[in-house]
Amino acid sequence: MSHLLAEIGFINELEKLKTISRYNKVIGGFRHENSAEHSWHLAVMALLFAGRTKFENLDLLKVLKMVLIHDIVEIDCGDTFLYDEEKRRESALSEEQAAERIFGLLPTPQGAEFLALWREFEARQSPEALFAASLDALQPLLNHLVSCPPHSNDAQLTKSKVLGKKAFIADVSPTLWQIAIEAIDRSVEQGLYHNC
Amino acid sequence: MSHLLAEIGFINELEKLKTISRYNKVIGGFRHENSAEHSWHLAVMALLFAGRTKFENLDLLKVLKMVLIHDIVEIDCGDTFLYDEEKRRESALSEEQAAERIFGLLPTPQGAEFLALWREFEARQSPEALFAASLDALQPLLNHLVSCPPHSNDAQLTKSKVLGKKAFIADVSPTLWQIAIEAIDRSVEQGLYHNC
Repeated sequence: MSHLLAEIGFINELEKLKTISRYNKVIGGFRHENSAEHSWHLAVMALLFAGRTKFENLDLLKVLKMVLIHDIVEIDCGDTFLYDEEKRRESALSEEQAAERIFGLLPTPQGAEFLALWREFEARQSPEALFAASLDALQPLLNHLVSCPPHSNDAQLTKSKVLGKKAFIADVSPTLWQIAIEAIDRSVEQGLYHNC
Repeated sequence: MSHLLAEIGFINELEKLKTISRYNKVIGGFRHENSAEHSWHLAVMALLFAGRTKFENLDLLKVLKMVLIHDIVEIDCGDTFLYDEEKRRESALSEEQAAERIFGLLPTPQGAEFLALWREFEARQSPEALFAASLDALQPLLNHLVSCPPHSNDAQLTKSKVLGKKAFIADVSPTLWQIAIEAIDRSVEQGLYHNC
């Protein structure tokens, strides 16, 4: 198969990410947010906040690549709710296999670059991965606050549980952390998290 | 209002783009594609094809910024179908007003940068704008082919009409043009465009 056919196959495969539902809803609440539009949202947020991390010389282009591809594995594995610890443990291997299959649709070096970027994102060690993960952790807080009706908390989330999952943001960007804690406090006020 | 509150307001405003329907459908055909996930798709395609335009020294980061924000005006104006000439003429002024309102939610210089990028995209003069516009013209061809049932052509599109709208791609990237004409030919075979 030619390189071009492989790339078209990959582009067509991406269509499936538009059908992968996340826990959160879109504004108005009439359907679940999907992982493609979520990835777009992170990318625009990256443009806004790239200059406000604790890292010098952050590579914004690399961050954008990461957030654009970070959820593509969900085409095979679906989205895993952040607070579903059991599924999170189980999904690590299947997500690695999904990454190898889907990025493997592309010719090298492009497929290899995406696979390496996805693994780097998952490892959360580099400045770019930590910033990308912070955006991925922040966006649902803001989305949830504007798309969820007051006093609905189906997952029985508590403020302390949410803070625990998001606390790493504080070490990445004071700006993003300020936004996060204000969103969490407002969510508690609106009855979206229990205040404990 | 603080800069941070303004940025949060902009991020929340972006939620609305997830509710802006395009003419095309998602794979499986169960809902229309929206402009947020479409923008994500273009951004990943930009990563694949940035090295295959006729332009030397293309600024990929600028291209990504453009494709990520190019449809944000549709929050106010809705999507305009490519072949709806009357609405296209009418929407130019309202899209400019939308750009000023929505990017004006952001503090300067960020809002001013986005507004300038959006205008540059619309003008289709710079290499980055021409490449971004080519991706914007190509993605619906591929999407339509995989998401539309055979022999459905509600808009009564003809091959010549589609070719006319997409022909500028040939001057931007031989690779993208090859993909486009093959997609158009396959669409004719599948009865999605009339063969005239």
